[in-house]
Parts: sequence; structure tokens; C-alpha cells
Amino acid sequence: MFNNLLIIGCGLIGSSILRGSISKKISKNIYVFEKSKKNISFIKKIDTKIKFLKKIDYKISNMDLIVLSTHMSEYNNIIKKLLRYISSKNLITDTGSTKRNIENLIYRNEKLKKIFVPSHPIAGSEVSGPEFGNKNLFKEKWCIILKTNDKSSKNLKKIEKFWKKLGSKIVFMNSNDHDKIFSITSHLPHLIAYNLVKTAIDFQKKNKTNIIKYSAGGLRDFSRTASSNEIMWRDIFFENKDNIVDSINIFIRNLNNFKRLIKNENNINILKILNNSKKVRKQIIDLKQDISKPNFGRDN
Amino acid sequence: MFNNLLIIGCGLIGSSILRGSISKKISKNIYVFEKSKKNISFIKKIDTKIKFLKKIDYKISNMDLIVLSTHMSEYNNIIKKLLRYISSKNLITDTGSTKRNIENLIYRNEKLKKIFVPSHPIAGSEVSGPEFGNKNLFKEKWCIILKTNDKSSKNLKKIEKFWKKLGSKIVFMNSNDHDKIFSITSHLPHLIAYNLVKTAIDFQKKNKTNIIKYSAGGLRDFSRTASSNEIMWRDIFFENKDNIVDSINIFIRNLNNFKRLIKNENNINILKILNNSKKVRKQIIDLKQDISKPNFGRDN
Repeated sequence: MFNNLLIIGCGLIGSSILRGSISKKISKNIYVFEKSKKNISFIKKIDTKIKFLKKIDYKISNMDLIVLSTHMSEYNNIIKKLLRYISSKNLITDTGSTKRNIENLIYRNEKLKKIFVPSHPIAGSEVSGPEFGNKNLFKEKWCIILKTNDKSSKNLKKIEKFWKKLGSKIVFMNSNDHDKIFSITSHLPHLIAYNLVKTAIDFQKKNKTNIIKYSAGGLRDFSRTASSNEIMWRDIFFENKDNIVDSINIFIRNLNNFKRLIKNENNINILKILNNSKKVRKQIIDLKQDISKPNFGRDN
Repeated sequence: MFNNLLIIGCGLIGSSILRGSISKKISKNIYVFEKSKKNISFIKKIDTKIKFLKKIDYKISNMDLIVLSTHMSEYNNIIKKLLRYISSKNLITDTGSTKRNIENLIYRNEKLKKIFVPSHPIAGSEVSGPEFGNKNLFKEKWCIILKTNDKSSKNLKKIEKFWKKLGSKIVFMNSNDHDKIFSITSHLPHLIAYNLVKTAIDFQKKNKTNIIKYSAGGLRDFSRTASSNEIMWRDIFFENKDNIVDSINIFIRNLNNFKRLIKNENNINILKILNNSKKVRKQIIDLKQDISKPNFGRDN
């Protein structure tokens, strides 16, 4: 598919793209640009044919596809450097979790506008680093590709084909819809998980009791989500601020309403909310976003 | 251990006690009182020696241990009927998720006060019904036993031994501590999961977009918790109202604070919260309340 593929930032996502690209023979040569020495020594073990770029230099102009999979807070710096070497012959995509900010970044430059097709694979874990990467990470998972009028259909198709080769199911979306939807289905759940754990920490401090040991009744599952990479999530919270603040407000409104229903022991309305939840769960399973196998704690 | 054991209410928890009791030979005879015909026909298949009580009658007086594992909203009715037949020779325990309410119920009657030792095994799942029961459900799980001065140590010891035989690790607690602790580690997480799913439903209705299909980024895991039995959870929310309202208030305070930190892009304080979460996760794993195996979605 390509002669030269460059992956910038090779953590969980980057190294999964790397592994998938090797396995699917997506490119003749695969280059990696990665800052962490620890990560580099790990990546070297994946395949001896992987080439490493020591810096962003003239070699960039030969890259058919550049995949940005660093933390989003590093994009600005990297793109500045890339701009010195890229031309309309290159193609760039990324894997960032928010998209309006990336689009704004691209729109500042006429060259970038045409060759940067932002994307967002909906895959990951609470762990990070290349040691957890997996060639099948994107298999059967959604990948959102941003569609705007200023991209050539040729470039859009190349990015679509790239993610399809890695196993993804493709959806085209605009950045506003993307950032709104994921503020609810992903950013809010993570933010809530972090704050639920914080609430438990606050309680422990105030009451001087160890409550963490009784976490099997629910807290445990949230703590997994709340152990996700802190830099990645800080970036998401800052970059999608407006939508996330809206989501928090709607959620708090729902919580206050639920509190009133409990106080008044409003049987009918409480049962309605709990039953509606169950229906959504069924949809999620029907849509193959989860399996129906019951969970009794992950040790059973 | 016993001649006659009676399990009243034989769903996920009751049938797990049933299976464990058979496997560990806890009682010569095991009786079940269960209202649902569907459940009874299922339970019959577990073991042909299981005896069924058709109603609460004089046979109750021969039961060495009676385990109440119905929904808590049924306790009042059942206890009224039991009181006609029980004496100081019987022993009662239960499996309800809140304990102050049960204690209040017991304290109304001098007979009950001495022979009812409330307990709460911290085990379960989002699924319910005897078909999901498991003889190892309580293995290595905490079981909270309420300790009060008016119980004879003989009765406390019997209940302790009973749960230990089923594999539980025992903790003695008073009802106030119990209800406070679990309002944070269990009731709040469930309530939040229900309301997060409701927030997603509200968003779908308002924006007429299917967002459920993008639930893999976080919502999916909450939807599992939010598919738990609605009668059980309504009962918990109503019975532990005061503690839960307090927990919601602390949680909303944390959310509002987090919202401010995002708005101001307060890097240091956000990272502090996210990093502290990670430490709690480590504690939960060290305490063997979860395994460290990363989660990439339950299909991987």
C-alpha cells in the first residue's frame, strides 16, 4: 500500500498500528519516531526491520503516510517541525480522541488542510505503552474519519483503506458531531470514574476507615477506568472543554432529579429509569459493543 | 452443621447459597421457599434432594437456620409470617445490601432481636435468577456480619461458621458503618451508572443520533453495572436514602470542582486527581479486589 510509513509516538495505539501494519504488510518500510528510550528498546524487539527516525528532518518528505499518535498536547510542536519538510505528496492522519482542536490546528495552514485527514480509532485500554500493543486492537472497532470539503477524495480513500486494512469499521463524521458524541459516551464516563474514586478517597480521609477493600460492589470497575493514562485524559478534558462542561451539567441535573426521586420514594419514576438502562444494555450487546457474559468480578 | 436449612427467596444469591450448602454438606435437609414457578422449576434441576416449602407454616419451627434472600421490600411481610412459628431455637440471617433498615425491623420484636443475625455477602453480578447461581460465588469474598450486644455469641459464631463454610472472609461491623461505607463503594457507583446511561438516552433523544453504537469508549462498562436488577436497586436506594443522598452531594461537589479545574485548565490539580486515582487502582489490585489484567473490551 505504501513505500514509507512513519508512526510518530509509539505507545499503546502507535505500537498497535505498527504491529497491524507489519502483519498486514501495509508498507514496505516502517519508520518510528519515539522520544522514550524505554519505549524504543521495547519496540526494537517487535521486529528487526523497524527503522527509527532520530529527528524530524528531510527524510519526512519521503513518507507516504505519517500517523500522529502522541499525546495531543504534543501535536503543536510536532506539526511545526513537520511543516518544514512536508508537501502535497505526503499524507498525514492522527489518532487523537478529540477532533475540533485538531481541525483548528490544520486550518491554520493551507498545506496541512489538504493532506491531513484526522481520524480516531475507538480502541484502547486503561493501560498504556508499547508493551500492551496488539495487532488486532482495531479489529471490528469503529474508526471515525473526519470528512471535510477541502480534502481530496483520493486522500480520504487512502486513510479509509489504511484503517480498513487494520480491521476497523469506518464512519465519516464532522468534528462537532464527533466531539459532542464522545463527550457523552467516553469523556464523561472517564471523568465520572475519576471523580467517583476521588469521592471514595475523600471519604476514607474523613472517616479514617479503609473502604477500598470493599470495592467489589461497584467501585472496583470504575477504578479500572480511572487508572487510564493521566496525560491523555488531561488533554482530552482540556481540548473538549465546552462539550464536557455541557455533559457534566446535564449529568448533574439528572443526579439531582434522581436524588429527589429517592427522597420522595417515587417508585414509578425510579423503576422507569432503571428499566430504561437495562434496555440500553441490551442495545449495546445487540450492537456487539460488549458481550452478554455476566460479570462476577474478573477473578471468576 | 445443621439438620434443616431453609432458604427463602432463591435467586442469584439464594441459589448460590443453596449450591454451596449442598456442595459443603452444610445441612442434612435443605428447604427452599420460592414464589416464582419459573425459578422453582429451575431449582428442581439443581438437585433432586432439595425440598420445597409451599407456605410459611408450622414446619418453620424445625429450621435450624433460615436464610432470607428475597428483595428487601419483601422482608416485612415474610418476617410477619415467620414470627408466628419461630422460637429461640431457630436462627435467622439475611443477605440484604443495606443493614440499618433490617436492624430496625428486628428491634421491634424481642424474639427476633436474639435470633436474627443480619449479614451481607459482597458478591453478585448484574444478572439475576437461580440460573446464574454458583457454589463458589462467595469464595474469597467479604461477608459482613452485624455485631450487636444483644446477640448471643453462640448465634454469631454459627452464622460466622456458615459463611466461612461457603468460602467467605468475615468482617464484623455495625449497621451505621456498613451503610455509610457501601453507600460510597457500591450504591453510589450503581446510581451513577444508571444516571450516566440516562444522560446518554437524553442526548440521543435530543440530538436524534445513535450514540449507543459508540459506547466502547467507556459507556459500555457503565451500562453493564446499570443493567442490574431494578427491584433490588430500588430497594437499596430507598432503604439507604440518607447516606446515599449525602454521597450524591459529595460527588456533585467533586464534579463541580473538576468542572472549574477544566475550565481554568488547571494542569497541576487535574493531574493530581488523575494520579491519585491510579494509586487507588493499585491498592484495589494489591487487596485482590480485582486482577491487573488489562481490559481491551471483553471480546479481546
